[in-house]
Amino acid sequence: MEAYGSYNGTLKPLRELNAPVLDRAMYFGDGCYEAVLVSHGMGVALDFHLERFQNSLALLKIPFPLTRKELKNELFRCVAATEADEVLLYWQCTRGTARRTHTFPENTPPNLLIMATPKRIEAPSVEMKLISVTDVRFSLCHIKTLNLIPNVLAAEEAKQKGAEEAIFVRDGFVTEGTHTNVHLLKDGTLHTHPLNEHILPGVTRRVLLELCKQNGIPIVEQPFTLSDLKAADEVLITSSGLHVSRAVFLDGLPVGNRDAALYRRLSDLYFKKVGLPPFHA
Amino acid sequence: MEAYGSYNGTLKPLRELNAPVLDRAMYFGDGCYEAVLVSHGMGVALDFHLERFQNSLALLKIPFPLTRKELKNELFRCVAATEADEVLLYWQCTRGTARRTHTFPENTPPNLLIMATPKRIEAPSVEMKLISVTDVRFSLCHIKTLNLIPNVLAAEEAKQKGAEEAIFVRDGFVTEGTHTNVHLLKDGTLHTHPLNEHILPGVTRRVLLELCKQNGIPIVEQPFTLSDLKAADEVLITSSGLHVSRAVFLDGLPVGNRDAALYRRLSDLYFKKVGLPPFHA
Repeated sequence: MEAYGSYNGTLKPLRELNAPVLDRAMYFGDGCYEAVLVSHGMGVALDFHLERFQNSLALLKIPFPLTRKELKNELFRCVAATEADEVLLYWQCTRGTARRTHTFPENTPPNLLIMATPKRIEAPSVEMKLISVTDVRFSLCHIKTLNLIPNVLAAEEAKQKGAEEAIFVRDGFVTEGTHTNVHLLKDGTLHTHPLNEHILPGVTRRVLLELCKQNGIPIVEQPFTLSDLKAADEVLITSSGLHVSRAVFLDGLPVGNRDAALYRRLSDLYFKKVGLPPFHA
Repeated sequence: MEAYGSYNGTLKPLRELNAPVLDRAMYFGDGCYEAVLVSHGMGVALDFHLERFQNSLALLKIPFPLTRKELKNELFRCVAATEADEVLLYWQCTRGTARRTHTFPENTPPNLLIMATPKRIEAPSVEMKLISVTDVRFSLCHIKTLNLIPNVLAAEEAKQKGAEEAIFVRDGFVTEGTHTNVHLLKDGTLHTHPLNEHILPGVTRRVLLELCKQNGIPIVEQPFTLSDLKAADEVLITSSGLHVSRAVFLDGLPVGNRDAALYRRLSDLYFKKVGLPPFHA
C-alpha cells in the first residue's frame, strides 16, 4: 500500500506529486495544516480538527474556498486511493502561488495539499523519555502553522539524546512538546497549560479535558514548572498520533509512574470516546 | 524578460518550475535562504551573502554539498538564463525530500532552489512610512530561515495602513523590520541593535557599520526604544533591496529628517562601496 496525495485536486502517488516552487509554503511556510488518524474510514475527532483548521485559516487571514463537506470529500478521496484501513491523513492550506513578496498576493487562490499515508495506528507509549529544551518559538503557537524549524531542531535533539520527545520551557514554565501537549497528574488532579499563544490547542488535549469534566476528575489550567513536572504522579503526553501517552524519564531521570491507575483510566476513556479499540485491554 | 529558476540543477522558466511536495520546505519551512541584487553580472556584496548562507546552514545543521565555486556557477547559470542586466537572485537550501517526520531524515541530500528574477535596481527610498508592531517572532532571527509567517503578517499590516514597512518591538526595544534592519542617527552617531538571536545579521547593515568605522562616524550597538527612534535625527532602514533608505513617518507621525547630510553621505558611501552607481547624485 502506497501513500497518495492531492495538490489542488490532482491525485497521485505521493512520491510523484509536485507543487510549484512559487507556492508560498516553499519560501515563507505561509500556511497551516492538520493531521488526523483514519481508522476504517473514520477520522478520529475529525470535526475538532476541521474546526481548528478553520480557526488557523482565520488567524492567518487565508480565505479558504471549500465548504467543510467539499474538503471532507477531497480528504477521503485521498484516503480511499491508499486502499488502507489505517491512514495518517495530513492536509495543509497555503496563501497561494505568487512571486515572492511578503505582503499578501492579490486575487490568488489558496493551495490545498493533502497527504494520505498508510500507517498502523499504534498503542500509546507508556514509557516515553523526554528532554527539556528552551522554548525559542514564536508567540503564534496557537496557530497550527508550517513554521516548524524550532520543533524540528528540538525533536532531533531529543532523538540524539535517546529520547522520544522534547518539551519546551519558556520563562521557567513548561509549554508543550514539539508535536504534543504535556500535562501532569498530581493527587488525582490533571494540570495543564492554559490555552494561549504559547501552545497549540491540541485536539487530544481537548478530548481529555472533556473526559475529566465528565468523570469528576479536577482540572487546573495553569502553567507549571519543570520542578512541578518532576514531582508529578504521572506525566501525560498527548497528540493525535500518541493518543494519551505517558513519560517515565525526563532529562535522564525517572519521572511520574506513581498513579498508573488514573493514567490508564484516562487513556482508556480516550479510546472509548474517539471510537478506537482500547489498546490497553 | 522572464524569471528563471533551478531546482537541484533543473533549469526552467520560474513559473513552470516544480518541487516535490515532500521537500521539507513545504511542510516545515525547514531551510534557509539568501537574496542578492545582481547588476551586469556582479552580485552586490555576494561574498557576505555566501558567508551568511554557510552560517545559516551550520546553525540549522544542514550539510550543503556544493563548494562555494560550484554554488556560484549554479547561481549565475540562472542569472544568465534571464538575459537581464539587473536581477534579483534568490536561493534556498532545505533539509531534503522525505516522508514528514520532525527528526532529520537520514541519508537525504539537501534541496537547492534558485530563483533569478529580472528586476530594475531601485533608488533608496528617502520617504519611507513605518508602523510598529509587537515582535512575536522566535529567537532564531539570526538565522535566515524560511519560517516567515510573522514577517508576512506584519508586512501586510503595514501595507493595509499605507506604510512600506513594519518594525518589530520586543520588550520595549526595536529589533528590526520584516525584511530590513533599523538604525538611527543621533548627534552624528549611528545607533543599531546588537547582533543576537533577535535580529538578522544584515549584509547592508554589515557594510554600513564598516563604512562608519572607516569614516570616523561613531557607532553604538545597543538596543534602542521606540521613543529613541521618535527622537532620532534620522531613521535608517537597510536591506539588500532598499540599500540605505530612510523613514520619515512612524505610526502616522513625522520622524527623523533632521540630518539629511549625514544620511545622504552614508547612502552614497554605501553605493560606492558595493559598486553601484550613486542614485542620489
